Amino acid sequence: MQEEQNNRDEYFMRLAISEAQAAYEEGEIPVGAVIVANGRVIARAHNQTETLHDVTAHAEMLAITSAASMLGGKYLNGCTLYVTVEPCVMCAGALGWAQLSRIVFGAPDEKRGYSTFAPKALHPKTKVTRGVLEKDCKALMQSFFASRR
Amino acid sequence: MQEEQNNRDEYFMRLAISEAQAAYEEGEIPVGAVIVANGRVIARAHNQTETLHDVTAHAEMLAITSAASMLGGKYLNGCTLYVTVEPCVMCAGALGWAQLSRIVFGAPDEKRGYSTFAPKALHPKTKVTRGVLEKDCKALMQSFFASRR
Repeated sequence: MQEEQNNRDEYFMRLAISEAQAAYEEGEIPVGAVIVANGRVIARAHNQTETLHDVTAHAEMLAITSAASMLGGKYLNGCTLYVTVEPCVMCAGALGWAQLSRIVFGAPDEKRGYSTFAPKALHPKTKVTRGVLEKDCKALMQSFFASRR
Repeated sequence: MQEEQNNRDEYFMRLAISEAQAAYEEGEIPVGAVIVANGRVIARAHNQTETLHDVTAHAEMLAITSAASMLGGKYLNGCTLYVTVEPCVMCAGALGWAQLSRIVFGAPDEKRGYSTFAPKALHPKTKVTRGVLEKDCKALMQSFFASRR
């Protein structure tokens, strides 16, 4: 059971990583997200803050808006968000409002992550799994910032 | 000087309240926001979470996106946001990313306000003024929730 869940988590995290790679290629900080309901991907998005000139265009925010539009309702209970990097305060606040069942992230973000700055931002029932494909998620970020120096 | 600023703050907060009233009439929780740059309103918005089925469609988020689009850049330093109710964690996170110079709000929000749940979410240089036309901002919220009971 646990191994099956791990495999599933890695599968969906790989999709999130492919979104992060798309961000990378567009010159965006490489963060990608997918939202899954009943084993199906209902939204995928990557960071587009530069392209859209909009600080709110984080991968998670775009994925939430897209998933809610797909479902026709603003609450995403029953859904799992996979995101390559720990959500920031803004995204965690949005995830809290949307009441997702579960959040899975890859790399931690000590500088901006919600677990440091807004540890109670998520809905109390939301389960969090951290560290899935962490190395791959982190490597993408490190490579991006190294290329910018 | 201080009196002049107070008058200016009340003037712009009244515009935010008129946005909140528009939300009220649409059956939305009545929160309104305006963003001002160099004494001019560059964005105005009200909560549209129900209409858009989107938890991210808070007045502040819509105003940030709109102001950035107007200015052609994602940073809003030099701008002041007027909002009728204290921003939530999500909105404070977005305001932090956008680096606004100043935030002015009317009514506090003990249940969801950022000052309780993410006190460091804003940019360290952002100045905050609270309590401008607080009674009017609060009355609109109380009337809305009373009408829903």
